[in-house]
Amino acid sequence: MTQSLDTKPQTQELRRLLAGFECAMLTTVDDDGTLHSRPMSICNEIDNDATLWFFTLDNSHKVVDIEHHQQVNISFSEPNQQRYISILGTAQLTKDRNKLQGKWQHKFQTWFPKGINEPNLALLKVKVNKVDYWESSSSSSPQTISFLELSHR
Amino acid sequence: MTQSLDTKPQTQELRRLLAGFECAMLTTVDDDGTLHSRPMSICNEIDNDATLWFFTLDNSHKVVDIEHHQQVNISFSEPNQQRYISILGTAQLTKDRNKLQGKWQHKFQTWFPKGINEPNLALLKVKVNKVDYWESSSSSSPQTISFLELSHR
Repeated sequence: MTQSLDTKPQTQELRRLLAGFECAMLTTVDDDGTLHSRPMSICNEIDNDATLWFFTLDNSHKVVDIEHHQQVNISFSEPNQQRYISILGTAQLTKDRNKLQGKWQHKFQTWFPKGINEPNLALLKVKVNKVDYWESSSSSSPQTISFLELSHR
Repeated sequence: MTQSLDTKPQTQELRRLLAGFECAMLTTVDDDGTLHSRPMSICNEIDNDATLWFFTLDNSHKVVDIEHHQQVNISFSEPNQQRYISILGTAQLTKDRNKLQGKWQHKFQTWFPKGINEPNLALLKVKVNKVDYWESSSSSSPQTISFLELSHR
């Protein structure tokens, strides 16, 4: 019998790592193989199943990238503290109205002035598969949190 | 007759943007399609032809990634100043001894204790194709510097 995996320690560790970060660089792969990054304001709450959420417009280029190549990278950098985080994730788009309302925060008004009524408003749901993180400048080997076992349940 | 392009304004603008940054997140694509990022200390000098250089070990995983998929992304983040830079580049490895010696700086000793005599020491040469940058939190559209015309000359 396979032992049941408890998601909580990994998710708690992820929450600890991301505390204080407001903005990530989201990297996607374009059809021509080029890699594009852009800053994305993150929804503060991290789901229990280690899902991250980002508001976007459904007609943006990154959405096309993700439709064709679901694997993304989300990185967080704090150079002053020499803290760096790389998240390997699988992204998909949702326009579920309840989810949009549940995840909305006032800070997103800056990028989406019409708020929850923005016609093309959507959410990128990123399932976290693996986290590599560095908390010291002198080490080139990251510490790692794996969520892969969880996604296969 | 095609007008000759002057590399200098773009390269100067790139130098201005990167001034003060010591560390980038380098994103590569693995054979299984997953995207990996890791912090990389950058060689301070940016060549006139907009090439960036990073020391690495030639047996590291990112080198395998780059052998199979040359397109990379290099991002710089300064959350306190809300400055974000995304560089689309094409990477290749070199072990040219003169280049290794020319690019070596004392700060790299932290990661490569044997210095220039580290047996697996190599350089990643990244040709910059395009730069997207954000210098304000309220804009979602980046400013752009294109180097693509230059690489076709």
